[in-house]
Amino acid sequence: MNYESLVEPASPLRGGQTLPDGDVRELLGLLAYTELMAFDRLALTSSHAPVLPQRSRAARFASDAVRRHAWLLDRVADLGGDPTAALGAFEGLFDEYRRRTEPSGWYERLLKGYVGDGVMDDLCHLAVRALDPESRSALEAVILDGDAALLADEEIVTAAAQDPILASRLALWGRRLVGEALGVVQTLMSTRPWLARMIVAGAEQDGEGGAAGTDPQAWLIARLTAEHTRRMDRLGLAA
Amino acid sequence: MNYESLVEPASPLRGGQTLPDGDVRELLGLLAYTELMAFDRLALTSSHAPVLPQRSRAARFASDAVRRHAWLLDRVADLGGDPTAALGAFEGLFDEYRRRTEPSGWYERLLKGYVGDGVMDDLCHLAVRALDPESRSALEAVILDGDAALLADEEIVTAAAQDPILASRLALWGRRLVGEALGVVQTLMSTRPWLARMIVAGAEQDGEGGAAGTDPQAWLIARLTAEHTRRMDRLGLAA
Repeated sequence: MNYESLVEPASPLRGGQTLPDGDVRELLGLLAYTELMAFDRLALTSSHAPVLPQRSRAARFASDAVRRHAWLLDRVADLGGDPTAALGAFEGLFDEYRRRTEPSGWYERLLKGYVGDGVMDDLCHLAVRALDPESRSALEAVILDGDAALLADEEIVTAAAQDPILASRLALWGRRLVGEALGVVQTLMSTRPWLARMIVAGAEQDGEGGAAGTDPQAWLIARLTAEHTRRMDRLGLAA
Repeated sequence: MNYESLVEPASPLRGGQTLPDGDVRELLGLLAYTELMAFDRLALTSSHAPVLPQRSRAARFASDAVRRHAWLLDRVADLGGDPTAALGAFEGLFDEYRRRTEPSGWYERLLKGYVGDGVMDDLCHLAVRALDPESRSALEAVILDGDAALLADEEIVTAAAQDPILASRLALWGRRLVGEALGVVQTLMSTRPWLARMIVAGAEQDGEGGAAGTDPQAWLIARLTAEHTRRMDRLGLAA
């Protein structure tokens, strides 16, 4: 991760070229809330880690999530928004997801972060395409640094390769997780019109407008599912 | 907190003037382990916070603890030590303390951090006096930044002033906490000869050698108790 960009962004966000500033503040609030929840999950991962070096490692990832969270709230304030309100708009968003995906064991916990953060990262990636190029690259530099993947990748690949029963249990768990995570995305899409606007504007920006414009939610779910499948492939797990 | 000093310390630690390098590495390991546990506790505080701004605030304190933790482990490596071993030497140190001090409610949770981290900060302050002046001030700049107090101070003072029943319950809770925390210190003093050496050398350095040299453990407990009393006074709670 590039800490510099967290402390001193390449450029302050200036809003989207075709989007109201309010939409951008909403997006920043969603991302900031998501990072706070990622912190929470990574802290739990740290406290459940089997050995101290893993504990220390997960704590560092948790700390990085807090720094992104703080950076995002600062950008909300830069755009004239109220950080507390921006955050509060998403309070409880992941509560049901969390209740329904309580991991049993270390690898299920790691995979939960890998799958859940993966879906949210992809959603973010698709939404920020709607911003002006400088804001887009500033946000991408801060948010999309692949932390969740780094923490889980190697450990799961190694463990799954050595234990076929674990591998098939994790494949099943991955399907459950992605289903629940896409449920959160569907809730967001049907309750936040700005998100659909951004997804469509982002797709147009990158020359993928047609299908996205017709049925944004169906297009988004198909796209996120495809990305998830690629991620599971990288772990050697069936999607 | 001075982030600069975390990224680039004023001077690398050079060991104590009269102490073996091994003692300094042990101290750094203890401090690094303590910060990791502080992270853990602050993350729990965050997830139990009644409202989102408190949640976000506690998460930032947790993140700061991780940065200190990482900085301390880097200094262990600078001194030729193995960070994993330095940390592992203290594994489980606070487990019993934690089991015996499960807070019920938000204010008990805040006070736990205030009292427990206060005792450990004081212990650290007394131990680092044994180091050469530059190492001492580098460590003091990083470690003794009063995070725990900042998080708890104002909230507890306000709540206790408005609610005498809460105030007397918290006074009782504070006595329980300090008793348990001093139990951890006693365990450390009786199992880690380097710590007693450092406490005595530090007291001599600051012209308080006599009593500390005769019975270091009794001297230390009396000193930590006095500091705790002052801290409870600041909250308006009976010690």
